[in-house]
Amino acid sequence: LDPAPEDPIFELYMHDILGGSSPTARPITGLLGNIYNGQVPFAKQIGFVPPQNGVAIPNANGAMPTVNGINGIPLGTGLSGTAFSGQNLNGIQTQLGPDGLSLGFGTITVIDDIITSGPDLGSQPLGKAQGVYVASSADGSTQMMAFTAMLEGGEYNDNLNFYGIYRIGSAMSHLSVTGGTGRFKNACGFAEVRPLIPAGQHFVDGAEMLLRIIVHLKY
Amino acid sequence: LDPAPEDPIFELYMHDILGGSSPTARPITGLLGNIYNGQVPFAKQIGFVPPQNGVAIPNANGAMPTVNGINGIPLGTGLSGTAFSGQNLNGIQTQLGPDGLSLGFGTITVIDDIITSGPDLGSQPLGKAQGVYVASSADGSTQMMAFTAMLEGGEYNDNLNFYGIYRIGSAMSHLSVTGGTGRFKNACGFAEVRPLIPAGQHFVDGAEMLLRIIVHLKY
Repeated sequence: LDPAPEDPIFELYMHDILGGSSPTARPITGLLGNIYNGQVPFAKQIGFVPPQNGVAIPNANGAMPTVNGINGIPLGTGLSGTAFSGQNLNGIQTQLGPDGLSLGFGTITVIDDIITSGPDLGSQPLGKAQGVYVASSADGSTQMMAFTAMLEGGEYNDNLNFYGIYRIGSAMSHLSVTGGTGRFKNACGFAEVRPLIPAGQHFVDGAEMLLRIIVHLKY
Repeated sequence: LDPAPEDPIFELYMHDILGGSSPTARPITGLLGNIYNGQVPFAKQIGFVPPQNGVAIPNANGAMPTVNGINGIPLGTGLSGTAFSGQNLNGIQTQLGPDGLSLGFGTITVIDDIITSGPDLGSQPLGKAQGVYVASSADGSTQMMAFTAMLEGGEYNDNLNFYGIYRIGSAMSHLSVTGGTGRFKNACGFAEVRPLIPAGQHFVDGAEMLLRIIVHLKY
C-alpha cells in the first residue's frame, strides 16, 4: 500500500490499560463485563476463581487470576487477548459460553485511552482516544472498534473518527477513518494498526496494550 | 435511485442466526439480552415463561416460547422481529416495558455473521460480518446496525463498514457505507438491504435472518 502522494500520513501511539491501579478502559457489559463489575449475582468482583475443582479462566495476559492479585484484571477483555480467545497459550482451551460462542463474545469495553507522540507512555501527550470496542468474533479473536481520537491543539476540536475490526494477536489490522472535525474536517481514509509490546509493560499493575496507528488521510 | 454509471454494484448475502445449536449472534444486554443470557436473577435461560396467569412473550418468529423447546430462541431480538415489535401478528399486543417503550428497546446483539455469495448458507463463503445491532425504536420495529464486512481475499484486508437503521419487516432498508480498507480503501456509498426467507429456514434450530445486501460504492 504505498501511499499516494496526496496522502498525508502521521502516527499516533494509543495506550489501552485494563485493570491495575490506573486503568484507561472499563468492560461494562457482556458476561465478562458483568463479572468485572460484579453485576453477575454471586460473581467475584475482580479475578474469577471458580468453585472447587472448577476451571479457572485466565487473565488478559494469559496468567491465572489471583483473587486479590495486584493486577486482578478482568478476564479475556481488552486488545491483548488471552488464551481463552482462541490462541492456545500454554494449553488453555477456549472457554465457550452456553451457546457455543466464546465466553467473552459481545463484551463491550469503553475506552478513554491516552494518545502520545511516541511509544513511551511518558512521551509527549497528543490527546485522548474515547469510544468503545466490542468482542465481535465467535472465537474471541477480534474486537470491533469505534472511537474518536481527540487531538489537543486549542479547543479539542481536532478529532478523527476510527471504525473497524482489530484483529487480536495479528501484526497488522486496518481501521477506516470515518470522518473528522476541525483540522480534520471531511477527512476519510484508513489506518494501519500495529500492536507493540509497551516498554514498561505494566505486568504487575494491569495489562497495557500499546497500538501504533499510522493514519493515511484523504480529504 | 437509479445508480449512477460509475457506481460499482455488488451483492452480499448475510446470514444472522439466533439461538439453536449454531448461532452466529448473541444478545448481550438490555432486558432481553440479559434474560437470554440468564443474567437477570431468577430469569429462565431460554424462552421466558411468566409465572401463573402472566403473559407469555412470543419468540422471534411469533411462536409461543416452549420452555426447553428446541428453538428456544430469545424473545424479540434479532432482525426478524416478533409480534411484540409492533406488527400485531395473530393478535398479540406489543409488550411494553415499565417506561412505556417496547420491552426489547435497547437490546444490544453482537454479531459474527456468515457472508456468502448466494442466498444459500452453503453457497460460496465470502467472509464474516462482525459488529452490533441495537433495538433502536420505541415500538421495536428497527435495529441500528454497525458492522464491518470482512471479505476474505488473502489477508482479510478488504473490509467494508456499514452503518444505519434496519427496518424490521420492511422490504427494503438503506444502510450507509462509512468507509473501507484494502480494496475498498476510502470507499463510501450506501447499501440496499432486503430480508429474504432463508431456504432451509432453521425453524427448528434457531431463527435465521437472511439479508440480501446490494452495495453501491463511490470512491
